[in-house]
Amino acid sequence: MSAPYVAVDWGTSSFRLWLLGPDGSVLAESRGDEGMTVSAATSGFPAVLAKHLAAVEAPDRLPVVICGMAGARQGWREAGYVETPAPLAALFDAAIAFEDGARAVRILPGIAQRQAGRPDVMRGEETQLAGALSTGAGGDGLICLPGTHSKWASIADGTVTGFSTFMTGETFALFSRHSILSHTIDAAADTDPQGEAFRNAVIAGFREPQRLLNALFAIRAGGLLGVSDAKDAGATLSGLLIGQEIAGALGDRPNTAVTLVASGRMARLYDSALTACGITAGIVDADAAVRAGLFAAAQRFWGPQSKDTISA
Amino acid sequence: MSAPYVAVDWGTSSFRLWLLGPDGSVLAESRGDEGMTVSAATSGFPAVLAKHLAAVEAPDRLPVVICGMAGARQGWREAGYVETPAPLAALFDAAIAFEDGARAVRILPGIAQRQAGRPDVMRGEETQLAGALSTGAGGDGLICLPGTHSKWASIADGTVTGFSTFMTGETFALFSRHSILSHTIDAAADTDPQGEAFRNAVIAGFREPQRLLNALFAIRAGGLLGVSDAKDAGATLSGLLIGQEIAGALGDRPNTAVTLVASGRMARLYDSALTACGITAGIVDADAAVRAGLFAAAQRFWGPQSKDTISA
Repeated sequence: MSAPYVAVDWGTSSFRLWLLGPDGSVLAESRGDEGMTVSAATSGFPAVLAKHLAAVEAPDRLPVVICGMAGARQGWREAGYVETPAPLAALFDAAIAFEDGARAVRILPGIAQRQAGRPDVMRGEETQLAGALSTGAGGDGLICLPGTHSKWASIADGTVTGFSTFMTGETFALFSRHSILSHTIDAAADTDPQGEAFRNAVIAGFREPQRLLNALFAIRAGGLLGVSDAKDAGATLSGLLIGQEIAGALGDRPNTAVTLVASGRMARLYDSALTACGITAGIVDADAAVRAGLFAAAQRFWGPQSKDTISA
Repeated sequence: MSAPYVAVDWGTSSFRLWLLGPDGSVLAESRGDEGMTVSAATSGFPAVLAKHLAAVEAPDRLPVVICGMAGARQGWREAGYVETPAPLAALFDAAIAFEDGARAVRILPGIAQRQAGRPDVMRGEETQLAGALSTGAGGDGLICLPGTHSKWASIADGTVTGFSTFMTGETFALFSRHSILSHTIDAAADTDPQGEAFRNAVIAGFREPQRLLNALFAIRAGGLLGVSDAKDAGATLSGLLIGQEIAGALGDRPNTAVTLVASGRMARLYDSALTACGITAGIVDADAAVRAGLFAAAQRFWGPQSKDTISA
């Protein structure tokens, strides 16, 4: 099958490139750790892209659509932001276009929210949102994209009406590595998404978010006093943070439909956490969502089958 | 005036010694950075004490009363914990006594709470509580001792019925130094306790504690989008954390009497924060409180005027 497009998800610390077929299927993939930070500091963005294009033997003139931090100010070319309320179709119109040698490149913009008191930005997740909606998942309601900086987006009629970022993953890393809890948390112990420690902590964080900074200290004190098990400490930290995130994201809309866009371990953790809070979420695979978003963008830019592809 | 006692507050990272007169007044003081961690790792506890006793020219046989981390397992001698509900007078009875050369030494115990779901410990703050109560301040109600690990103690009839530690100060340090917010926060800018940024953040943290992890990201996003002032970032972080702490500590008792035991900048920050949340707190100086607690203990151990003093 001939490949009509190259799709790239260029994050802060990771790089993923796919050769997509005319139906959006994956024909080849190349991954690396040359995210924005490494790319900017070492060989530069064109060289990183060229290396991965070579790895999948991409034809010379195949067009490339990119989302993520390559479009940040410190990235390859700044792709700006679409402002909320942001129709997801507007992302495609606002992409920046340029040539890299003979190759057409587009970088998708992020989304910015400037409302008073709730400034927020996303870059990369907007493409997952577009992808989830293009596959028919996640209609009106909330879409949760968990991670280092979890995003919760309110969607109505294909438009991101607003969104909130929660520093959940980064906060977990800060406390488990740099705080007094680092003495208690066994970094080797993986959290069991169905385990009692995790689920109880989710419920505590959800019901009593105002006690977070106390509940965190209790992890340490419980270890000192021998009343809690050190192997549960990491799961408790994770659960408290995710439970508080869910309480904050749902706010005064506890009955909103929630779609979870996540993969692997993260999908299992958040699915279990949402269930513990009484929420049944639809689940969309995050990798499939970003590819679907990039594929929808490419079809918009270059039609269902680009000329270059046919000649390739 | 002859000095009847030596009083020592031996923290994790600080050492403070006072020669106290028969009325509890300070005759001489010696401070250093030889807290528990440094003392254990370098010259050892007896040598650190001897150095500071020499600095104030303390007579050879003057008795010494110590509170704080010198009584921890990793300290000089382990002084254990009194369990909640803990009558403050029980602290004195549970002190450990030993001789350091010809000198009588007592180390006060900490307080532990083993109730299910709320394990907690304090070591050092219990002496401030005893001191605040010995001077007639802080009757029944809540006593707040802000800091790296803020303590909120419920007091009834001279007994600590329960307490909660909030990792507020440590969390401020984690986010301002190690998180993505470190790019936004100007470490040189001191928080103005009466400033709008601080007070607004206190109210936001108090009213919407469930949005903490989102409000923290908004500090970063507001800077990226140019909608908030970088010089306010540290005050906002501080206010959000303290506001959430107050919400968690007051819980379902919003009308409880609150006494703040604090000094200097910390006293001004928490006084302003409590006021912003509609709470008028009595204030007791933290240094005076710990000295009063040590003085009350010394009187209990050795009477109002120790024999050694008289001969000194």
